[in-house]
Amino acid sequence: MSFDFCLEQVRKQVPLVHNITNYVTVNDVANMVLACGASPIMADDEAEAAEITSICGGLNINIGTLNQRTIRSMHLAGKRANELGHPVLLDPVGAGASRLRTETALSLMKEVKFAVIRGNSSEIKTLAFGSGSTKGVDADMADAVTDETLAEDVSFVKQLAKQTGSVIAVTGAIDLVADSEVCYVIRNGRKEMGSITGTGCQLSGLMTAFITANPENQTEAAAAAVCCMGLAGEIGWQHMQPYEGNSTYRNRIIDAVYRMTGEELLEGAKYEVR
Amino acid sequence: MSFDFCLEQVRKQVPLVHNITNYVTVNDVANMVLACGASPIMADDEAEAAEITSICGGLNINIGTLNQRTIRSMHLAGKRANELGHPVLLDPVGAGASRLRTETALSLMKEVKFAVIRGNSSEIKTLAFGSGSTKGVDADMADAVTDETLAEDVSFVKQLAKQTGSVIAVTGAIDLVADSEVCYVIRNGRKEMGSITGTGCQLSGLMTAFITANPENQTEAAAAAVCCMGLAGEIGWQHMQPYEGNSTYRNRIIDAVYRMTGEELLEGAKYEVR
Amino acid sequence: MSFDFCLEQVRKQVPLVHNITNYVTVNDVANMVLACGASPIMADDEAEAAEITSICGGLNINIGTLNQRTIRSMHLAGKRANELGHPVLLDPVGAGASRLRTETALSLMKEVKFAVIRGNSSEIKTLAFGSGSTKGVDADMADAVTDETLAEDVSFVKQLAKQTGSVIAVTGAIDLVADSEVCYVIRNGRKEMGSITGTGCQLSGLMTAFITANPENQTEAAAAAVCCMGLAGEIGWQHMQPYEGNSTYRNRIIDAVYRMTGEELLEGAKYEVR
Repeated sequence: MSFDFCLEQVRKQVPLVHNITNYVTVNDVANMVLACGASPIMADDEAEAAEITSICGGLNINIGTLNQRTIRSMHLAGKRANELGHPVLLDPVGAGASRLRTETALSLMKEVKFAVIRGNSSEIKTLAFGSGSTKGVDADMADAVTDETLAEDVSFVKQLAKQTGSVIAVTGAIDLVADSEVCYVIRNGRKEMGSITGTGCQLSGLMTAFITANPENQTEAAAAAVCCMGLAGEIGWQHMQPYEGNSTYRNRIIDAVYRMTGEELLEGAKYEVR
Repeated sequence: MSFDFCLEQVRKQVPLVHNITNYVTVNDVANMVLACGASPIMADDEAEAAEITSICGGLNINIGTLNQRTIRSMHLAGKRANELGHPVLLDPVGAGASRLRTETALSLMKEVKFAVIRGNSSEIKTLAFGSGSTKGVDADMADAVTDETLAEDVSFVKQLAKQTGSVIAVTGAIDLVADSEVCYVIRNGRKEMGSITGTGCQLSGLMTAFITANPENQTEAAAAAVCCMGLAGEIGWQHMQPYEGNSTYRNRIIDAVYRMTGEELLEGAKYEVR
Repeated sequence: MSFDFCLEQVRKQVPLVHNITNYVTVNDVANMVLACGASPIMADDEAEAAEITSICGGLNINIGTLNQRTIRSMHLAGKRANELGHPVLLDPVGAGASRLRTETALSLMKEVKFAVIRGNSSEIKTLAFGSGSTKGVDADMADAVTDETLAEDVSFVKQLAKQTGSVIAVTGAIDLVADSEVCYVIRNGRKEMGSITGTGCQLSGLMTAFITANPENQTEAAAAAVCCMGLAGEIGWQHMQPYEGNSTYRNRIIDAVYRMTGEELLEGAKYEVR
């Protein structure tokens, strides 16, 4: 298998993806899931969360605007997805920024088996060490993955993957996607993507589509999704007019995923495997 | 009256439309309602739902991300709108995909008199038969209205309209808008509209504005709204650049409604009456 | 200090802004806060609202889709922000349109000290007189600030600022930003901005970023934010294609804030001080 195959499987299978996600970026998440060829459904009431999960192929749990009601739904849907063998992704938005977020993420990790956990470096370190210094929903610069810290960071994410049994995806200037044995070090994307709200959330939706359509190789599918999103950020930027900014850039990135071919992804992906 | 008149009445009256709708597509619904010349307000707490309905001209109920709290508000607002003689539209998003959605839609139909019920073919069949095979929020292909099944489908929607006392609008590749005697068969729109989240929800908002401003002829107003949205999809597509996709297309469709004149609608509408 | 300094301080300090806001326009608010150089976080559960406020620099409370759960969070976060000396902004969306909205706004004003209260003319008059005639979320034309009523309106907002101890910002065709002694009369912006959902909400997010980064002069910072938004509306309009409408215009305004320099703001701001 390869990255183009991962994308093409999404387009061929049109997996139904259940998203329990925040109300800030939910529309962009839905359009991103559609852009890659999958089909999104959002449902967060405990009276239907598990049932909706049952008719889907994968589940994306994002704690960006969690509340007591939706936390219960996350647990119910997560457990049902586990029973059915559906891949579940956790996006621990803001873990480290409040006790509620940190505890909810840790409690979900205890009760639900996640195929992938995807967050920024501060969120992931918070999950690993039980507390952290997330700056709102952004990573603390001190936690960033850099060329200087790369060897150490790769070892850390592989170790965390081993410990949790989940693929770990840490996204930032350099992205890492690792299981216990292999780590993709990815250098697609642009820094201007950080000026758009919810590029991380969109990636989590996209990644859930990819792992749902590629059950045989979750790590590679997760890495393909990261490259797809980053490459879309590069392509989208090429079409920016001098008077356009972050709001239009948001559209151009989703548009670029919508237009992306497997071949384009294969050629544009910038990564090494460690 | 004719379709251009229906649109011009919206622009002239600027009806206030109360929307109890899902948080996925709500922003696009609001911009679509504004684009056609009406004014949207969203309010879903039971402490104000009925009161907000009172100051509006029409009510749009969409169950896309329903929960226990908002279901109560839907009932309260629906009943108040009925008392005041305001038109109420039901968009039964995902009816057939979970018991909660199916039961909520059926319960609302029992307690509230709807001027129009608008959904995809699977959602509408679910309401007619009490259960269905909706694929998440999309129609099952087996339920689609096609040229082969058209005569049967027209008869079905007229019958359902008679039985419910509501105008029935089934949207898809071919759209049907029917009361017990007349059925508009509409062929505007493009298949790419299905790659945007919430085009159905946007149409429901637009349609509520149209029926609110045209109380004398609800069926024609609902059909005019379907043609307006589909035509906007055609016009919007003409302005797409080779690198643009579903996210920009969403904007272009709303933009096309904003720019649409009555004359343009009259000329571009593609329908027959059966 | 001057307006360019106010904007540059936002870019330099990158203040973290906590928003408890409605789900209709929240995505645009987040992108607007990012566009001006600040960083948004949304959190509305009472289990974390005060804690999230603690790690931020400023708080934006918007009652656009309030409910019992979030009203409690608004109070908790508002009080904590007061204890910490963080500026708090109130956007009383729809005050006057329902008792719940009017009472919630008045109750918040009793319990929380607001640095700025920003609304349309009907909302602000509702807060001043305890009841009003807001048309949904839009101002009643009878309440509009015009050249004919200007002297009286300036005196009214100064008086209200004195009485409340808050900067009062009334936005519409002519915008007023006043403390007890000084009133900025601002004439930036375009009427087409009224066809976009949430330009008021976006301005409130932007303004919270400005007052957070400029604690020494809240009135000037609030006025700078109003000019910045209005000027962005003028610049964004210049780039509109003949087939573009309100949805694309929304993006172009946020884009224009993203691109705006201090110098551009200084040159484009149209105001007088009374």
